[in-house]
Amino acid sequence: MTPPKYLTGDKAGIDEFLSRFDVFLFDCDGVLWSGDYLFPKVAETIDMLRSKGKQLVFVTNNSTKSRADYKKKFDKMGITASEEEVFGSSYSAAVYVARILKLPAPKNKVFVLGETGIEQELKSEGVPYVGGTDPAFRRDIEPEDFTNLANGSALDPDVGIVLIGLDFHVNYLKMATAHQYLQRGALFLATNTDSTLPMAQSLFPGAGSAGAGVSKAVGKDPLSLGKPSQAMMDAIEGRFHFDRSRTCMVGDRLNTDIQFGIDGKLGGTLAVLTGVNKKEDFLAEGATTVPMAYMDQLGDLMG
Amino acid sequence: MTPPKYLTGDKAGIDEFLSRFDVFLFDCDGVLWSGDYLFPKVAETIDMLRSKGKQLVFVTNNSTKSRADYKKKFDKMGITASEEEVFGSSYSAAVYVARILKLPAPKNKVFVLGETGIEQELKSEGVPYVGGTDPAFRRDIEPEDFTNLANGSALDPDVGIVLIGLDFHVNYLKMATAHQYLQRGALFLATNTDSTLPMAQSLFPGAGSAGAGVSKAVGKDPLSLGKPSQAMMDAIEGRFHFDRSRTCMVGDRLNTDIQFGIDGKLGGTLAVLTGVNKKEDFLAEGATTVPMAYMDQLGDLMG
Repeated sequence: MTPPKYLTGDKAGIDEFLSRFDVFLFDCDGVLWSGDYLFPKVAETIDMLRSKGKQLVFVTNNSTKSRADYKKKFDKMGITASEEEVFGSSYSAAVYVARILKLPAPKNKVFVLGETGIEQELKSEGVPYVGGTDPAFRRDIEPEDFTNLANGSALDPDVGIVLIGLDFHVNYLKMATAHQYLQRGALFLATNTDSTLPMAQSLFPGAGSAGAGVSKAVGKDPLSLGKPSQAMMDAIEGRFHFDRSRTCMVGDRLNTDIQFGIDGKLGGTLAVLTGVNKKEDFLAEGATTVPMAYMDQLGDLMG
Repeated sequence: MTPPKYLTGDKAGIDEFLSRFDVFLFDCDGVLWSGDYLFPKVAETIDMLRSKGKQLVFVTNNSTKSRADYKKKFDKMGITASEEEVFGSSYSAAVYVARILKLPAPKNKVFVLGETGIEQELKSEGVPYVGGTDPAFRRDIEPEDFTNLANGSALDPDVGIVLIGLDFHVNYLKMATAHQYLQRGALFLATNTDSTLPMAQSLFPGAGSAGAGVSKAVGKDPLSLGKPSQAMMDAIEGRFHFDRSRTCMVGDRLNTDIQFGIDGKLGGTLAVLTGVNKKEDFLAEGATTVPMAYMDQLGDLMG
């Protein structure tokens, strides 16, 4: 395997690298910012790439926010971006349900275990849903719920899909409801299955952990529509029509971002060291996911 | 492997089977009852076994109830049983923590993700704990919780063990708190890891599912003290001093109950079809866990 090229401080190397690509796919958390902290020179780097005519797409697995929510975050951070350039795992899942699965109405309703980001994106694609942030599900399970779930009277007969994302309000009632739909044959999808979420300079349970209970109960894993799933790559390509050989994925996480680019046969992958993985993770003997190049931080592209 | 003998309706077969054993270990959920539904002729069957001088032990993985709680349930169901005959996974876990692990105080505190059954049994063994049914943990996670968990100010420095059981009040705050203790090196135990719980003649998420999110986030599985763990068999034997060759395990679940009996080298195992597994599961070519005998339901022992 070719060892990755270290680009920080290598002006000629950076110029040559940038010249190979017309399109850059960016992960957000851990690349542009960490929580509310913007990494140095990120806004300038984005502007520089735009000035060179590069097409930019922001590809995030965070399902709690919609594209509209992300646009607000970009504005707050002072980074130039349009809503159309954002491609989140919630949107990816909504597109998959609406345009790929295309279950015949009315049996195309989705039971959501997740936050508002998923709801907004399903709505934008015209997909009906229940669950999600509905206060009716934000309560303890009661004895009669077991009966009503088991006999189906508490279930919506039109639900044909269970969609799981990161849910800060996960509870037993929602898990049990999702489990009942799945036992009745509903399709099982996830916006993503990241085990952890980097927050407050520590790790917290991610979407994959919030949904792990339902997976374990039903004994199968969901089809994930987030990175590194190629369903997400196909959906991005369907919208932006780019040349994969002239496209580079930029990210901090090897098993989602970099793997996503490699599996998608993109022309290149670029790792930054401001997030989850350290350079030892891909420089080590026997590393399985190795980027084409890496830098200390995204702003180093400014030379 | 000897195919299991089908006993329903086979009066001579039942008599011969019963004569082989002095002790019967019974699973409860899915064998005696499903939630509040008592299976037919269960009380009579228990009385019949007692009248024949059999010793009975009720061995349950359900950690939500203590032995005292179980006694109440038996009374309500009209089944003759004493508290001393009940052996639950909460009790098994409490005994393991108090008598086997014996961490030096004060660093022996347990963070409980579970219900009152675990708390009562820890208390009975003199083990300090936090979490559990404490209302302080029965709420949504707030932004400041991420900070206070990450910097440790919301954590109890004496917690050395995370113990997970079935928690009908599981939420993101509890999962994140358990995850933080585990990232700091706490031991990881579970009362049991059953994926499902038979209730209301259907299946609901079990202890293993309630705890699966924490397992996934931290990237490791807990040590389970419930069936089929032989730590539980050893604890039962320590208390009742039975002859394993004259003992039969009765259960509905192959991978917990029947496996528990096989691994414990008991004289026999008897599967009933009123719970999780169907006969196809053990009659199929290549089935790995096969009971000695099976019946449609426990009451069929009445002939």
